[in-house]
Amino acid sequence: MKAEILAVGTEILLGDIVNTNAQYISKRLADIGIYVYNQSVVGDNPNRLKKSYETAFERCNLVITTGGLGPTKDDITKEIAFDYFNKKSILNEKALKNIETYFKKTNKKMAESNKKQAFFPKDSLIIPNFNGTAPGCIIEEKNKILIMLPGPPKEMIPMFEESVIPFLKKFQDGILISKVLRLSGIGESSAAELIDDILSNQTNPTIAPYAKEGEVIFRITAKAKSEKEAEKLIEPMKKELIKRFGNNIYGEGETNLQTEVCKLLIEKNLTIATAESCTGGLLTSKLIEFPGVSKCLLEGIVTYSNTSKIKRLEVKKETLDKFGAVSAETACEMAKGIAKTSNSDIGISTTGIAGPDGHTKENPVGLVFLGLYINGTLKTKKLNLTGDRNKIRRRATIMALNWLRKEIMYI
Amino acid sequence: MKAEILAVGTEILLGDIVNTNAQYISKRLADIGIYVYNQSVVGDNPNRLKKSYETAFERCNLVITTGGLGPTKDDITKEIAFDYFNKKSILNEKALKNIETYFKKTNKKMAESNKKQAFFPKDSLIIPNFNGTAPGCIIEEKNKILIMLPGPPKEMIPMFEESVIPFLKKFQDGILISKVLRLSGIGESSAAELIDDILSNQTNPTIAPYAKEGEVIFRITAKAKSEKEAEKLIEPMKKELIKRFGNNIYGEGETNLQTEVCKLLIEKNLTIATAESCTGGLLTSKLIEFPGVSKCLLEGIVTYSNTSKIKRLEVKKETLDKFGAVSAETACEMAKGIAKTSNSDIGISTTGIAGPDGHTKENPVGLVFLGLYINGTLKTKKLNLTGDRNKIRRRATIMALNWLRKEIMYI
Repeated sequence: MKAEILAVGTEILLGDIVNTNAQYISKRLADIGIYVYNQSVVGDNPNRLKKSYETAFERCNLVITTGGLGPTKDDITKEIAFDYFNKKSILNEKALKNIETYFKKTNKKMAESNKKQAFFPKDSLIIPNFNGTAPGCIIEEKNKILIMLPGPPKEMIPMFEESVIPFLKKFQDGILISKVLRLSGIGESSAAELIDDILSNQTNPTIAPYAKEGEVIFRITAKAKSEKEAEKLIEPMKKELIKRFGNNIYGEGETNLQTEVCKLLIEKNLTIATAESCTGGLLTSKLIEFPGVSKCLLEGIVTYSNTSKIKRLEVKKETLDKFGAVSAETACEMAKGIAKTSNSDIGISTTGIAGPDGHTKENPVGLVFLGLYINGTLKTKKLNLTGDRNKIRRRATIMALNWLRKEIMYI
Repeated sequence: MKAEILAVGTEILLGDIVNTNAQYISKRLADIGIYVYNQSVVGDNPNRLKKSYETAFERCNLVITTGGLGPTKDDITKEIAFDYFNKKSILNEKALKNIETYFKKTNKKMAESNKKQAFFPKDSLIIPNFNGTAPGCIIEEKNKILIMLPGPPKEMIPMFEESVIPFLKKFQDGILISKVLRLSGIGESSAAELIDDILSNQTNPTIAPYAKEGEVIFRITAKAKSEKEAEKLIEPMKKELIKRFGNNIYGEGETNLQTEVCKLLIEKNLTIATAESCTGGLLTSKLIEFPGVSKCLLEGIVTYSNTSKIKRLEVKKETLDKFGAVSAETACEMAKGIAKTSNSDIGISTTGIAGPDGHTKENPVGLVFLGLYINGTLKTKKLNLTGDRNKIRRRATIMALNWLRKEIMYI
């Protein structure tokens, strides 16, 4: 089966929005073994849209559209599709009811123009929409399958997951299972080098490495007759990667560094407090993304001035005068000070030069010190980061989280 | 001129990355009056890529490609293009020098495979790349223009701005100037309703409204013979929008709420400290994005526990016992307390239930109180937000920034 994703909408062609739907759908189709051969975007123009359907079905047999299912006269995705397939559309009672229910739920009044959103060919499969006024549909005609979905992701995604994925799984040739390993503290090139032999020789399972900010992801995908068999294929490769990368692997599947850190803290019954300068609240904010973090996080202080460092964290004025705010010594006193004044097991600190100003000959932009007070011991780490102000702040935050993770793993 | 943007890369079709290049290029082309009629993505496959060139040039006369200019054998964008145009490619000395300079600058060794990145047709225009090893090029053939750029945005964007935009401006039919007004505190539907008459009757200039998280943007675009004339067309519409929306307009052009807040604070010589609970560092972190914020921000505390609120902010235990941590009373004491203990002119606080847990019958998820101590006066705001944990935290942060902005405007 060859798939094409066709987004309909002039706002995409004007660069007003990014076509995230194409990525979402492509990824999910790959998950179930259906490969996308083309992605296209066309505007709200009847002739060009019709040509896009023709081009798409010349080269693919599954076409999924997003957008253009609204109530206005610019919304033509269905009308042109029905024309392409030479099908009449009629008022579909089930679709109409779906729309009426949505208006009732949101306490709004249905307009006359919304009625066109309930028109579909007699033999099409309606995809209900519980988050908007545009039901979608599936048309199967000879070898061609056309699936039409609305544009807004909060409508499209549930419809895709609840109706389209089950529908398409029928066409799946065997099972495709993916496992994701997540790494931090190693760059993509280095990681790829360490698995060069695996990458060169892979057949089934396959491994795809890719980089996101501050992490590298290995996606291991196996194709087999059943889920059990696919997992049996994945296990040895997963074991091999763990052997090669050790604790650079911080998690598996849908997770992130801050989640893993919080889980470790709670599991080991440890409390933590944060003292930030250049990261300015980012580190605390990341930890607080975790529901239940109140079990371990006592407080966080952004001591953005020297006065604040002295007053809140008992950093010594002499230390600031002698070594400066951006120093290993100050980072240590901040970490120890926050742990002491908040009565937490762990104190972690950041102090650095995010830029663009504030640097000197000895202290360039990107110089950041991390401090860690843990189990009565004080440690410090020196970073030399590149990028703009906010990139440096984000990278310092990620490295602080990863360092913390590695340190508390062994407690 | 009709433009098509063609991204080459199997990783996009697998859903590994979002095609942000298409949005960037489309927006910039629209800025200079060149409209994109199609966006396409094709994989690293010679036959399908060639067909994509054929399809693109059947319907457009300007095609811009991104991706596939690397040194590996999967990188075929140029080779297939040269084949399509029936052109021979030769080693281009200027391009080779560009690549060698890049390797020298980054202290890396040029490999044999990188040489192919310097092969171009004799009559093509080379686009230098100062951030990677892949120069781009422009081929003009009869009525067709093909512009080839690398995939990574940090390489593509500078090349596009420095070489492609000046090249394309020659084809510009008149000048297109856009001004952007940014609004906060009003929803997109309400904003659109208030300019319904303008939207229905617009010719030149045009106004395009669109929503981003926590803000609405109006882009006013005028077409004229000169920049001066275009600005003359924009002025009256801008004035009319200011008249209708008043201080819901927080800025113009490339800016954001936190930047405008910091500029106001510094301009009025005011100092501020923050006391956050549910927003957990997000608010402080947003302010610290602004270089030079140390002129106004003294410190920020994330008082995530009651103990912390009492100890750091002098919030009264009786207040917490009687009204709870999530209350107007606590928000006020937090705001007053941080201002007092940090000695700042302004104290701002947040306390709420970000969810998914922590709610009660009286206090649902999304209930957030903001507190503001300013000029000796205490104010509070009650919010009822929807969304998941992090959406509630982000929205509370945006509303706190907008409230702060409106309050300090009149000092």
